[in-house]
Amino acid sequence: MRLAIQAEDVRAAAERIRPLARRTPVLTSAGFDAQSGRRVYFKCENLQKGGAFKIRGAANLILSLPAAALAKGVVAYSSGNHAQATAIAARHVCSPATIVMPEDAPRSKMEATRSYGARIVTYSRFTDSRERIAEAILQENDATLVPPFDHPMIMAGQGTAALELLEETGPLDALITPVGGGGLLSGCATIARELQPSILVFGAEPEGANDTFLSLSQGERVSVEPHTIADGLRSPKPGELTFPILQRLAEGIVLVSDDEIRATVKFLLERLKILVEPSGAAGAAAVLFHKLPPGIRAVGVVLSGGNVDFENLAKF
Amino acid sequence: MRLAIQAEDVRAAAERIRPLARRTPVLTSAGFDAQSGRRVYFKCENLQKGGAFKIRGAANLILSLPAAALAKGVVAYSSGNHAQATAIAARHVCSPATIVMPEDAPRSKMEATRSYGARIVTYSRFTDSRERIAEAILQENDATLVPPFDHPMIMAGQGTAALELLEETGPLDALITPVGGGGLLSGCATIARELQPSILVFGAEPEGANDTFLSLSQGERVSVEPHTIADGLRSPKPGELTFPILQRLAEGIVLVSDDEIRATVKFLLERLKILVEPSGAAGAAAVLFHKLPPGIRAVGVVLSGGNVDFENLAKF
Repeated sequence: MRLAIQAEDVRAAAERIRPLARRTPVLTSAGFDAQSGRRVYFKCENLQKGGAFKIRGAANLILSLPAAALAKGVVAYSSGNHAQATAIAARHVCSPATIVMPEDAPRSKMEATRSYGARIVTYSRFTDSRERIAEAILQENDATLVPPFDHPMIMAGQGTAALELLEETGPLDALITPVGGGGLLSGCATIARELQPSILVFGAEPEGANDTFLSLSQGERVSVEPHTIADGLRSPKPGELTFPILQRLAEGIVLVSDDEIRATVKFLLERLKILVEPSGAAGAAAVLFHKLPPGIRAVGVVLSGGNVDFENLAKF
Repeated sequence: MRLAIQAEDVRAAAERIRPLARRTPVLTSAGFDAQSGRRVYFKCENLQKGGAFKIRGAANLILSLPAAALAKGVVAYSSGNHAQATAIAARHVCSPATIVMPEDAPRSKMEATRSYGARIVTYSRFTDSRERIAEAILQENDATLVPPFDHPMIMAGQGTAALELLEETGPLDALITPVGGGGLLSGCATIARELQPSILVFGAEPEGANDTFLSLSQGERVSVEPHTIADGLRSPKPGELTFPILQRLAEGIVLVSDDEIRATVKFLLERLKILVEPSGAAGAAAVLFHKLPPGIRAVGVVLSGGNVDFENLAKF
């Protein structure tokens, strides 16, 4: 079976998103290395525009649309980082963006999304279906859906994080990213395994949202009911397009607990001086808590986002 | 009068400290620009080794010592970032470091300093003199004092932050750094004014520790009794060597309140996803709260450190 994306798609994405996505810094920390027993290179997507890697995929899809489609607008449903990313990328090309968000989404995320010029349509998570609402808007305006992960342009865009990271670090033993629907991991695995065929690519998943872990071990996509502090990783099921890539190219999924994620967020803040949201810290937690197999020395870790409210930090 | 350092000393420092100090990233933020009305380039010394710019000066002095002096060891008195920086630089060249700290210094800073292999000697801030204690240790071992700011090698080392920043940004209208004793500002002013003669160099000082502000307006070094949340800027008086440089090369000092500093720390954390300590945020506070004169568009801001305890964040 031909996979949904190839390394050349990631390279094309890197060219396409250059005017919009930031080349984020790669940081190291002697303290983290000492505690984890590895040599770790952090790709800081928490310092990305919009506070997360999501702009890479959204920009790749939106910047590839013809002018006629852009004029009709784009639609996304998300209460989180994908909403902001879609709004930012749409504004860049003056395309009207509509974001479908649950009415109880964090006010800060709603305000941030609105500040980028997007129209927000809210729905009740208890009585409405966001897919149906998005579908109605799409049909009404003949607009384009920007899906959160299960689309070749989104997956290829997210892979540019690994491309930039490996360009800076050179050869690594392993690469690890958080896994929600698998867009980031599938894109990163695609380019990483082409650049460095011997690199081991891992996903980090919360114990309470282990759908990709279960799916890989059972050989088919299975669903779970996610409950985890990592709100960006609460996707119930791997993507139709992302899953075959993970089956082919990923070494495996390692699981981290919410407590391990919390401790890692704290460590990254106190020691590296960077704010990473729980979802964004899952890969780092896996390394810090020794979940990777032995023999791995140099490892790249994608810190995928940093959007957490100040008030919530006190709970850590 | 010949000034204590010249631009060539900063260039020499940049070469000398290369193996030890990190070239920190320069970040920008559309949100900060919108709120401040400037185009701001942040030099992130909070992401520096040891969590602050201090390693630049300490490394420059220590790496310039002959082997015989290194064998006898180095001594610093500091309860803060300078202690850690001295310990890190000394360890790099296997020189025994002794740090004189108040017995009530934050445990986290003591532990960090000890973790870098330094010996810590504590004293009571109420009954002992840290200078006398340091003097006794210096004489006993014939060791070398690493002063916190008033030394040409320290000043030249700190200036490398501005050198790196301007190498990345190109021409700026202004540059602003926090001011404690003036080591960072004098070093940065020296190289910045040589590279870009028209650049306006400002210092940012807390209202409650405005010794440099008063000294510049009175034309001589005067003392104050500092009380500010910015513990790294509580020096009571400008340095003997730093002050003439500020008189010659600085455009002026702008004052910020503790509330403005707190709000800026919060903004930098929530929006830029980086942890900056109160002292380190003084320059950013001056820009965010419109303390710079009008007509300045592109401004470089040195975020000088990020060492703040997680528990203290809740108070912001």
